[in-house]
Amino acid sequence: MRPVMDRRTVLAGMLAAGLPASSILSARAQTTPLSSWHDGPAKTSIMDFVARVTAPNGRDFVMADERVAVFDNDGTLWCEQPIYSQFAFALDQVKLLAPAHPQWQTQEPFKSVLSNDAAGLARTGEQGIFEIMTVTHAGMTTDEFDRSVLNWTSTARHPRYHRAYTELVFQPMLELLEFLRQNDFKVFVVSGGGIDFMRPWMEAVYGIPPERVVGSSGMTKYAMGADGKPSLVKDAKIDFVDDGPGKPVGIHKFIGRRPIFAFGNSDGDLQMLQWTAAGSGARFMGIVHHTDADREYAYDRKSSVGKLDKAWDEAVKERWIVVDMKQDWKVIFPS
Amino acid sequence: MRPVMDRRTVLAGMLAAGLPASSILSARAQTTPLSSWHDGPAKTSIMDFVARVTAPNGRDFVMADERVAVFDNDGTLWCEQPIYSQFAFALDQVKLLAPAHPQWQTQEPFKSVLSNDAAGLARTGEQGIFEIMTVTHAGMTTDEFDRSVLNWTSTARHPRYHRAYTELVFQPMLELLEFLRQNDFKVFVVSGGGIDFMRPWMEAVYGIPPERVVGSSGMTKYAMGADGKPSLVKDAKIDFVDDGPGKPVGIHKFIGRRPIFAFGNSDGDLQMLQWTAAGSGARFMGIVHHTDADREYAYDRKSSVGKLDKAWDEAVKERWIVVDMKQDWKVIFPS
Repeated sequence: MRPVMDRRTVLAGMLAAGLPASSILSARAQTTPLSSWHDGPAKTSIMDFVARVTAPNGRDFVMADERVAVFDNDGTLWCEQPIYSQFAFALDQVKLLAPAHPQWQTQEPFKSVLSNDAAGLARTGEQGIFEIMTVTHAGMTTDEFDRSVLNWTSTARHPRYHRAYTELVFQPMLELLEFLRQNDFKVFVVSGGGIDFMRPWMEAVYGIPPERVVGSSGMTKYAMGADGKPSLVKDAKIDFVDDGPGKPVGIHKFIGRRPIFAFGNSDGDLQMLQWTAAGSGARFMGIVHHTDADREYAYDRKSSVGKLDKAWDEAVKERWIVVDMKQDWKVIFPS
Repeated sequence: MRPVMDRRTVLAGMLAAGLPASSILSARAQTTPLSSWHDGPAKTSIMDFVARVTAPNGRDFVMADERVAVFDNDGTLWCEQPIYSQFAFALDQVKLLAPAHPQWQTQEPFKSVLSNDAAGLARTGEQGIFEIMTVTHAGMTTDEFDRSVLNWTSTARHPRYHRAYTELVFQPMLELLEFLRQNDFKVFVVSGGGIDFMRPWMEAVYGIPPERVVGSSGMTKYAMGADGKPSLVKDAKIDFVDDGPGKPVGIHKFIGRRPIFAFGNSDGDLQMLQWTAAGSGARFMGIVHHTDADREYAYDRKSSVGKLDKAWDEAVKERWIVVDMKQDWKVIFPS
């Protein structure tokens, strides 16, 4: 089966279940843009910026072809707590694969994963994480990996919200993506997350097609099967890390044009924001600040996941837009 | 100055000079598609394929979002003889940079380049080529490299035709790119050539924006200047070789979706054609066969540049479309 068929099936399934794809569709039909945003400086500055760069005779006009907007994913477009969703996927995959690997019952880091021993897992350190990522992200074809991701997005549930991870996307940001597209922006994801983990579901959930998803990757090898069928096999070797100073590199490599609009939420987005800011002409730089422990999570300078420290200082200094989730957003997730 | 401004300047200059951009514009306004193609099996099979995948109720219908078409560049979209144009650029850059490097007058491989000694250059072998590519493709910012490419495309002339290299693009293929776009295909270049060498001029010449250009690349590093201005610096280390089995890897990495339409001209395109062919549903695989020594060049199995041998055999066996340049094309270059 072609991965593309899987995507269609998943989209159909999401629509049937009333999952986020439907919120996208309603966002697309929005008559009032950014309706889940409270009036305030963040919303005003977004609307102003878009009006300025799209006014054909204005001094800040940017041709449609050059309206490149980039968004971080974890913590910017969807929830990244209590652990990155891709790592939750990896842990779930270990459990799914365990029956074929009986030795994992006694072998770290798998033993700790299988017994839900967070402290034991933490003791295995970076080496443990590397082994978990290797067995769950390498040694299969790209088509097989695609299917395992889609199987996970349709079955896994977030520990706090008991909803699919792809439902825990930020409704105000879905509306922003759509508002930009309606104004002929080219909208890209530029994430530290795995490119192969994101592409299978982002078109259905964000309306962002695979070729507009930039992320981290492992090496891939072309192999011709004995049956004359070629495949691409995922390797454990790291190809590209799209995080921190890697983000401008990823933007140059995959997009080849400097963005005029960038949104992030953590120090991993600092260089992407700097790179966007350093271009000439009108620019928009935004940061999502997680301030809402009731509806989502509250974290910044001291968080191990999505730490916002240096980028926050630079945002204040450079007058970038800092979105206060609690104050600026009427709702967090699609209903 | 933003590279984007350079592109605009170059496009404006090309339009003023009546160079290929004007042929693009006329191709865009084409009322009869593929008008530079003679009637015959190649033209018929292209027209048939596009009709089949775009007929909404047909069994071969493909949704617009999934209509990915990939084109090799050297020898498929523009002339690749007598040497790859990117290597011609590198040799010209050595001459341009020579005044700042007096030692090159006596030091190989530069000495041979500066004295137009092809035999001497050949004797320096792969190491010589590597040194030439290093001094001309690394050690500068991406913006500086952009400008050097655009300076070259506007000043360099092909030794046989005495025209700019960007004029030596195949008019029938320009029409094919436009015909596909008019039918809502997403058209990509997937070339063994350097991605940074191609992107600065392809939008003006082919109508293909930077984010739809896939190619080989060196490593790039993000650096923050003492003046607070960030830059991306090109490194001599190879990042990715988008040729042969690297082409399906590049397609997966940059596009993330299997093409339904692929065109190449040499053995370096074989795996890209195989990968395209192995998908399910309607597929088109095409090869340009250079058969016209009078108007362009005639070469295939024994050519050192653009060798067409195994891919030709597979095309015959698998009934891919082989375009006979002499028979199928009314004109070669834009007038």
